[in-house]
Amino acid sequence: MDLDPVSTNPDAYRVLFENARVRVLEYSDRPGHRTTPHEHPDSVMVTLSSFRRRLGTDGREVEVDIPGGVARWLSAQEHYGENIGETSTHTIFVELKDPAPQPTEEAVLGPS
Amino acid sequence: MDLDPVSTNPDAYRVLFENARVRVLEYSDRPGHRTTPHEHPDSVMVTLSSFRRRLGTDGREVEVDIPGGVARWLSAQEHYGENIGETSTHTIFVELKDPAPQPTEEAVLGPS
Repeated sequence: MDLDPVSTNPDAYRVLFENARVRVLEYSDRPGHRTTPHEHPDSVMVTLSSFRRRLGTDGREVEVDIPGGVARWLSAQEHYGENIGETSTHTIFVELKDPAPQPTEEAVLGPS
Repeated sequence: MDLDPVSTNPDAYRVLFENARVRVLEYSDRPGHRTTPHEHPDSVMVTLSSFRRRLGTDGREVEVDIPGGVARWLSAQEHYGENIGETSTHTIFVELKDPAPQPTEEAVLGPS
């Protein structure tokens, strides 16, 4: 199954640009929006708005409350996301394409 | 000579976080500020403000006028930068650490 977020949730994710090393996505939604499950490779998320979201996978859920204008590491993971705040979410994902130089760490849910 | 911007211009650049794959920098300045020459590896720049800057290297200069909330590719390069606008510059750099998978392209000045 294609779990590329651009395929699973084209209403919220769009490709800003792509080259040999990265693909850059823009994400935007409104309060109450919920994505279907999708996969992220190792990525850096740069927030253009604050947001409050519930992220879930395999029966586990976490809530995140992140300010605008910050950068966070997102380890490769599959999850779905729900905007549980009262404002829109607007953020950029810099997806890393190069093979990771070492084994990925234990599965993490949400940005660290 | 150490051309790491965190060393050359610690008033403007600071490390937000770093891991095996990326180093993430925050850049901020005020109108009229000019950096000394420094080096960037292949990076993605995500702008948190609009800005107008003059970038220069080896006798060449370009002027860039970039909106806030956008992502741009910055090929590995040495340059200096000057804020020639009337507003502060605030931006994030996601520096890629992994070896590039193919030879870098012809030298580019400024973001593409």
